[in-house]
Amino acid sequence: MNLLKEKILNEGRVISEDILKVDSFLNHQLDVDFLVEIGHEFARRFKDTDPTRILTVEASGIAVAAMAGLAMNLPVVYAKKKKASTMGGDVYKARVKSFTRNEEYYICVSSAYLTNRDRVLIIDDFLARGNAVLGLLDIVEESGASLEGVGIVIEKGFQEGGKRLREKGVRVESLAIIKSLQDGRIVFE
Amino acid sequence: MNLLKEKILNEGRVISEDILKVDSFLNHQLDVDFLVEIGHEFARRFKDTDPTRILTVEASGIAVAAMAGLAMNLPVVYAKKKKASTMGGDVYKARVKSFTRNEEYYICVSSAYLTNRDRVLIIDDFLARGNAVLGLLDIVEESGASLEGVGIVIEKGFQEGGKRLREKGVRVESLAIIKSLQDGRIVFE
Repeated sequence: MNLLKEKILNEGRVISEDILKVDSFLNHQLDVDFLVEIGHEFARRFKDTDPTRILTVEASGIAVAAMAGLAMNLPVVYAKKKKASTMGGDVYKARVKSFTRNEEYYICVSSAYLTNRDRVLIIDDFLARGNAVLGLLDIVEESGASLEGVGIVIEKGFQEGGKRLREKGVRVESLAIIKSLQDGRIVFE
Repeated sequence: MNLLKEKILNEGRVISEDILKVDSFLNHQLDVDFLVEIGHEFARRFKDTDPTRILTVEASGIAVAAMAGLAMNLPVVYAKKKKASTMGGDVYKARVKSFTRNEEYYICVSSAYLTNRDRVLIIDDFLARGNAVLGLLDIVEESGASLEGVGIVIEKGFQEGGKRLREKGVRVESLAIIKSLQDGRIVFE
């Protein structure tokens, strides 16, 4: 998606060889009109699929998933981190290790909002080592739902998440794949 | 907003005298088309104001704020809980006590996305004791921005948040105000 690549080149900042900061439009400040375009792009990429529901994880996946839901006219469910006191006991859960925050946490989805009749499209803002998406896959499997695919805004192609998912036979559509962040330069695949 | 009250009566579940669960459409599963309507209602309520930016806090405020941003053609900024390793040092922060989760945390906004030239509209899903919104007010004050108002989807009128904000002279627009959850019944003001 060229519009996204331009946006990344114009606004992204390389913090280290591993970390790209795009918080001016994607995951701190939200460029809402741009996210609407992202939503339409996911709808276009997955137009040959027939999902019943979009699944993401809080917090940075929510805005992107909501715009994909808007474009595809689908309900969105976001997995919660930890178990809030208002979440009923009947939840699917998976353990996730975050390298960005250097912590482990659980992600939970109420069984009311994911059933074995669902066909799920997972949407997230970043794919790096893939742990968050693998946690969501565990939850989809636990629910008995089927998976239509995984849509990612920015994949770090130099980390193993994309490979791990594709080796499992998962269809991954990444709107931009970054090959390298070395020497402070953003290089796309 | 009658559509919202109907939705709360149809789908809301009273967990206790303090807790109303509306996670079928607002803060776990998202009814995206409905949230678009919520966004338009905030635009209507605040049409006499001139905000430059919408501010909310992760995670459950994000979807509502994004739809308000879409309706009002404004960028959205969401405060992050704790300090992510990718967030630069130049942040505004405030401490918040959450009664729902029984924990204290910091909320942070990068100074790049809130300046003393901004006129801020705060949007959130729930107003109960008001601690999250008061934290956002601290951040607005620290940045030197001005406040146009606070828009809330569901205010628990039987808790003190609304009173605390209004006593400070803050304009609060709540789309539904709940008077009581006693005896398992939802009563609106």
